Amino acid sequence: MPVHSPLDLPEGDPFGPENLPYGVFTTPGDARPRIGVRYGDHVLDAGAAARAAGSPHAELLAAPLLNPLLAAGRPVWTAVRAAVRAWLTEDAHRAAVEPLLTPLAEAEMRLPFEVADYVDFYASEHHASNVGRIFRPDAPDPLTPNWKHLPIGYHGRAGTVVVSGTPVVRPSGQRKTPADPTPVFGPSVRLDIEAEVAFVVGRPSARGTAVERGDLREHVFGLCLLNDWSARDLQAWEYVPLGPFLGKSFATSVAAWITPLEALESARTAPPVRTHPLLPYLDDSADRPDGFDLRIEVVINGETVSRPPFSAMYWTAAQQLAHLTVNGASLRTGDVYASGTVSGPEPDQLGCLLELTKGKGPYLADGDEVVLRAWAPGPHGTRIGLGEVRGQIVPTRY
Amino acid sequence: MPVHSPLDLPEGDPFGPENLPYGVFTTPGDARPRIGVRYGDHVLDAGAAARAAGSPHAELLAAPLLNPLLAAGRPVWTAVRAAVRAWLTEDAHRAAVEPLLTPLAEAEMRLPFEVADYVDFYASEHHASNVGRIFRPDAPDPLTPNWKHLPIGYHGRAGTVVVSGTPVVRPSGQRKTPADPTPVFGPSVRLDIEAEVAFVVGRPSARGTAVERGDLREHVFGLCLLNDWSARDLQAWEYVPLGPFLGKSFATSVAAWITPLEALESARTAPPVRTHPLLPYLDDSADRPDGFDLRIEVVINGETVSRPPFSAMYWTAAQQLAHLTVNGASLRTGDVYASGTVSGPEPDQLGCLLELTKGKGPYLADGDEVVLRAWAPGPHGTRIGLGEVRGQIVPTRY
Repeated sequence: MPVHSPLDLPEGDPFGPENLPYGVFTTPGDARPRIGVRYGDHVLDAGAAARAAGSPHAELLAAPLLNPLLAAGRPVWTAVRAAVRAWLTEDAHRAAVEPLLTPLAEAEMRLPFEVADYVDFYASEHHASNVGRIFRPDAPDPLTPNWKHLPIGYHGRAGTVVVSGTPVVRPSGQRKTPADPTPVFGPSVRLDIEAEVAFVVGRPSARGTAVERGDLREHVFGLCLLNDWSARDLQAWEYVPLGPFLGKSFATSVAAWITPLEALESARTAPPVRTHPLLPYLDDSADRPDGFDLRIEVVINGETVSRPPFSAMYWTAAQQLAHLTVNGASLRTGDVYASGTVSGPEPDQLGCLLELTKGKGPYLADGDEVVLRAWAPGPHGTRIGLGEVRGQIVPTRY
Repeated sequence: MPVHSPLDLPEGDPFGPENLPYGVFTTPGDARPRIGVRYGDHVLDAGAAARAAGSPHAELLAAPLLNPLLAAGRPVWTAVRAAVRAWLTEDAHRAAVEPLLTPLAEAEMRLPFEVADYVDFYASEHHASNVGRIFRPDAPDPLTPNWKHLPIGYHGRAGTVVVSGTPVVRPSGQRKTPADPTPVFGPSVRLDIEAEVAFVVGRPSARGTAVERGDLREHVFGLCLLNDWSARDLQAWEYVPLGPFLGKSFATSVAAWITPLEALESARTAPPVRTHPLLPYLDDSADRPDGFDLRIEVVINGETVSRPPFSAMYWTAAQQLAHLTVNGASLRTGDVYASGTVSGPEPDQLGCLLELTKGKGPYLADGDEVVLRAWAPGPHGTRIGLGEVRGQIVPTRY
C-alpha cells in the first residue's frame, strides 16, 4: 500500500503548483527563521531544497527574511518560482524534497519580510461613500471632491505591522463624542477591523523619479491579505486635520504568506468604469485589465459576516503605485501599500464593522477572533488560496 | 612657535566639549562610513579613538551607523559621552586622538542612522492657527477642536528622509485651486519649507505598553534640525480626509549631527501655559520644565528670513512620546518624531513660507538654497550649536 506523500495534493488544492506563496517559518526542532513555500498543508524549506538541487538561488533562499529575494527583481522571481515548482512536481526531485516538507501545524510562521514604509489607500468607492456618510453626515457628497481624481492614501506605522496570529492588544486613548463636554481616556470602545489587500514592493526605485502603471510587475513582488485594525472612537476625535494616527497605529496584521503576482494572472479583471476623466499618469482606460478578482471572506468567531469582492475596487494597485511615486518619492524593498477597506455594493460585502453596523456597533469584544480569507481564480478552473490573517483581541494592559 | 591643534578650540566654540554631537562620515581617502563626533570644525573618528583608548564601547562605535549606539540605552549613552569628552579634552589622550581628527570640509556626512518610522507632529499653536486661517478661512476657529487636547500628528515617509546637503528635486503632482475646473498636473508651484526639530528614538518599547512623559530621556537619544519640505499645492488638494501624503513624501531633510539630550540640560525651559486641562498622560503641570530653548534661524539664499523660537512650542517632546505610544504602539530604534513647524508669535518668527507670505508666496524657485541653523544655551554661558540642515531645489526631472 503506497504511503501518502505531501507532494501528492488532492485535486483542486488551493495551495497547489499554480500558487506557491512564500513565507518565513521556524519549527520546534529548528529555531532558525527560514524561507518556506506553502504546498498544500505543508511548508517546503526553500533554502534546503535549493541547496539539494544545486540551485544558483540557494543563497537568496537561505536568508532569514524575504527581503533579499524581494530585492532581486522580476527575472529572478520568475526563475525561482519555476525552480520551486520543479522541485515540488518533478519525480527527479521527489526523494530529496519530501524530507524538507513540514506540516503547517508544526511550523511557526513569522513576519516574512522587514517592512520599510507602510502606506494605506482608500480605494473602495463603496467604503469611502459609506464612511463619508457616517463620519461627515452633513456633507453634501459622501465622497470628498478629490476622491475620483486620485487614490487617497496616507502613511501608517511600519513598526507595528505584525504577522497573522499575533494577539492584538485593545488600544487605549482619547475619545470625545459630541455628548462629551471634554475628552475622556480609556480602552477603545469601538474597535474595528478593515479587510484589505496589501501589495509588497520588491525592486526599489530612485528618489526623484516616478514609476509608471505598466511597471507594477517590475516593482511589486506579490500581495497578501491585511487587517487594518481601527479604533473608531480614537480615529474620529483625532483625524482632522492630519489624518488617522493612533486610531490605526497600534497594530496592522498581515498574512504569513505572500502570493506572487505571477500566480494571479488568471485573476486579472477590469476595474469599475471610471466616472471621471483621469490625468495621464492615472488613466488606465487603454491598459490591460489591472484589477484582481479576489474573493474575500470575513469571519468573526467562526461566523462569516461578509464577503467583500476585491474586483469592486475603484483604484488599482498599478494606479496606486504610479500615484505614490509621481512626486518623486522612492520605493524601497519591503515597502507595503494596502488597498484600503474592501467593500462591495451589497450589504453582505462590507469590509468593516463600521459599515456592517452602519456606525452603530457592536464592535469587537475582548476575546473575539477575526479571520480574513480569500481565493482567486487560477488557471484551468483552479483556485489560488491566499494566506489567512488571524487575530484575537486581548484586553488593554493598563 | 606652537602648532595650532584642532583640540584647542577657541573660547565659546558652539561645538565644544559640552556639545559632542554624533554623525556618520566618510573621507576621500577612506570610503567606509564610520561614526564621528563633531569637535569645533573637525570630526573625531570615534571608533578609532575608542580602539586607541581600549574602550569597552569600541565595537558600538565601529558601526557604520548610529543604530547600535542608539539601541544601547541611556547608561551606555552617558558612559560613551563621558569617554569621548575625556579623549578630546585630557592630555593623556592628546597624542593618540589628534591624528584621528578630520577637518569638516574634508568629511562627507551621511544619513547617520537608519530611520524606522517617521512621525510629524503639529505642535506650534502659532503655526497651526496661521495655517488654519489660510487653509480653512471659513472655519469659526483656526484651531480644530482637538488641538488643545492632544498633540496632533501623522506618519510620514521614512524612506525619503535624507541628510543635509542632499539636493531636493521639485515634486510633480496634482493640484486644483477653486479656479481650476479640473485638476492639473505639473511641478509644484508652491514648494515650501518647514523648520522643525526632530527627536531620535534609541531604546525601543514593547507593543501593547505605553511610554510615560518622564521616560523621555530613557528612550530618546537626541535631537536635530529637520526641514519638512512641503508642496502646498499638492497638499491642499489631497489632504482631506486622510492627511498630507504626496505633498510631503518626496523628501525630508535632517541634519548630519544628532545632539544628545544630555547636551541640552541647560536649555530646558517651561512650555507655554496650558489653556485647557489635560488628561493625566499628557498633564505636565507638575513636571520639570520639558521644553527646549532652541533658537532657530531660517536662511534662504544667504538671507535670514526668520528666527523661530522652539521654546514657544505648545506640546513638548515628552508629551508627544507619551501620546505616540498611549495606544500601545511600540517604539523602534531609529524612530524619528518631529515637532511640526516651529513658529513663534512674531512675524519674523514663522517657520514656513506659507506663513511668512500669508499664503501668497513667493515660494521656492529652482536653485534656491535653504539652510536651517540653531543653537541652545549651554552650561556656564556657552552655546550648544545644532548641526545645520541645508538643501537646494533642483528642477523636476520629468
